[in-house]
Amino acid sequence: MSIPSLNDIQKAHRRIVSLIHQTPVLTSSSFNAIVGGQVFFKCENLQKTGSFKIRGASNAILSLSDNEREKGVTTHSSGNHAQALAYAAQSLGIKATIVMPDDAPSVKKKAVAGYKAEIRYCSPTPEAREAMCEEVQRKTGAIFIPSYNDNRIITGQGTAALELLKLHPDLDIILTPIGGGGLLSGSVIAAKGINSNIQVIGTEPEAANDAFLSFKKGELILVNKPNTICDGLKTSLGDLTFAVISSYVTDIVTVDENSILQAMRYIWERMKIVIEPSSAVPVAALLSGKVEAHNKKIGIIISGGNVDLDHLPWHQ
Amino acid sequence: MSIPSLNDIQKAHRRIVSLIHQTPVLTSSSFNAIVGGQVFFKCENLQKTGSFKIRGASNAILSLSDNEREKGVTTHSSGNHAQALAYAAQSLGIKATIVMPDDAPSVKKKAVAGYKAEIRYCSPTPEAREAMCEEVQRKTGAIFIPSYNDNRIITGQGTAALELLKLHPDLDIILTPIGGGGLLSGSVIAAKGINSNIQVIGTEPEAANDAFLSFKKGELILVNKPNTICDGLKTSLGDLTFAVISSYVTDIVTVDENSILQAMRYIWERMKIVIEPSSAVPVAALLSGKVEAHNKKIGIIISGGNVDLDHLPWHQ
Repeated sequence: MSIPSLNDIQKAHRRIVSLIHQTPVLTSSSFNAIVGGQVFFKCENLQKTGSFKIRGASNAILSLSDNEREKGVTTHSSGNHAQALAYAAQSLGIKATIVMPDDAPSVKKKAVAGYKAEIRYCSPTPEAREAMCEEVQRKTGAIFIPSYNDNRIITGQGTAALELLKLHPDLDIILTPIGGGGLLSGSVIAAKGINSNIQVIGTEPEAANDAFLSFKKGELILVNKPNTICDGLKTSLGDLTFAVISSYVTDIVTVDENSILQAMRYIWERMKIVIEPSSAVPVAALLSGKVEAHNKKIGIIISGGNVDLDHLPWHQ
Repeated sequence: MSIPSLNDIQKAHRRIVSLIHQTPVLTSSSFNAIVGGQVFFKCENLQKTGSFKIRGASNAILSLSDNEREKGVTTHSSGNHAQALAYAAQSLGIKATIVMPDDAPSVKKKAVAGYKAEIRYCSPTPEAREAMCEEVQRKTGAIFIPSYNDNRIITGQGTAALELLKLHPDLDIILTPIGGGGLLSGSVIAAKGINSNIQVIGTEPEAANDAFLSFKKGELILVNKPNTICDGLKTSLGDLTFAVISSYVTDIVTVDENSILQAMRYIWERMKIVIEPSSAVPVAALLSGKVEAHNKKIGIIISGGNVDLDHLPWHQ
């Protein structure tokens, strides 16, 4: 198992730059006044396909040989990686077959279908997803593109922090949410490679705290069927992302569901951007004081904005 | 009555630049595919106070003498100008008294209060607003800052198009919504001053088509209590904005309420930004084909994002 470097992330960025948006970095004086620091929101919700996942997915596809690309790609995903892989494949003219749990939000299913990928539905368990995805590979020869536990994915996801640090190299802290840990792994490699004094802190729902437990205990702990509004953060870490995170990350903090909901609503109401619950987790860490922002410069990777507008959490 | 010039807008921009956000310009490949052109969204919903109105309000205050500033400022507004004036006054350390109709969206009332302005509520008629605002001026000496029919406001609002054209000088068309006409007037002066070939088209709800009727007939026509979801566009043109618009604007088109609602939802769902109904009007003009986008480069000023998240139009 080899851990990628800042140089690998820079190479990934050159590889994918024409396929992605250079997303804006927003600030809010009212948010800064509340937390007492300066916060820079790197808006990957405004990224193509509505999340940072296009970075890793396109980097992975562009790393394949011509022969591999001809066979097409496949993955299993609860949503954002699925959309990202479908879009990247469509942009590059290759076939994608996406295995999705049948309870994925309808807006995510529609988007994947809109990118002309073939969708195969399965039960919402890790076992069912993997079995069906293996079947697709066996029958079609499609190349499996994992959603986080993979160096091509980690280096792709790290390009968001790379862009943020290019604009704001003097950040004290970078915050990201944690699902499978691909975004956090890529971000910490980018940040520590640029300036080893930058603290990189992972933020996680209390109700899906596998990374928090793993980090504190020093061994990989999985959680089964976590009950959180953050549909993007239900995954546990993999061995590779756990190795990166346990080696380099400063800390992991958790926040409760109500804090996440309040933080999500605050961002919609005051910053006028649509963010999904997962993206509100690092925001909640600041608003709840779990991460101390006083007189600090803090970057947050806003991971995505794919929500079902007919089922907003504050209407339920 | 003198009409301001591009040079006046450039001066306004230098005056206000430290008080405002240089808002991002977003693009969407899915939107471009639908309309068959290239569309650039200048996101004033991401502006301070959630709308472009801070541009005109801060330019107006910064144009006052020290003696006038000491007296404070006042205005009557259904919302976005109110927030903008309150915020600009707070930033510059002067007192603001805002006359608001008692049926203004609660999110707008809360924001004005949050900027420490004094609020005076009145009935939701032009007469009641003006009477109360005159009373405030008489009793306190506060300087009245109008919301659109004023050269300082028009030149301030024109700075959004100025920024957009600096990034994309080769636009074929610029679209804005029309309420009182300040944004459209400033935009057309900026655009025509930079390149007289740029077409500037105003877009208006059918249900509040005073500007359309005025433009077509060549005389100022007012509408009374228009019934539209676009709470920002219920105002009629003033003599100054009518003079600018009738002299320079290429055309005015109208769109129906359902088109506006669909366009608003599309932008939330696909572009992940919160826009208010008024901002969806130029989007609807493109999606409905009222403005032909084929092979054109089009700039849209997305005017604002102040909505009540508890009362979204697609939940009513």
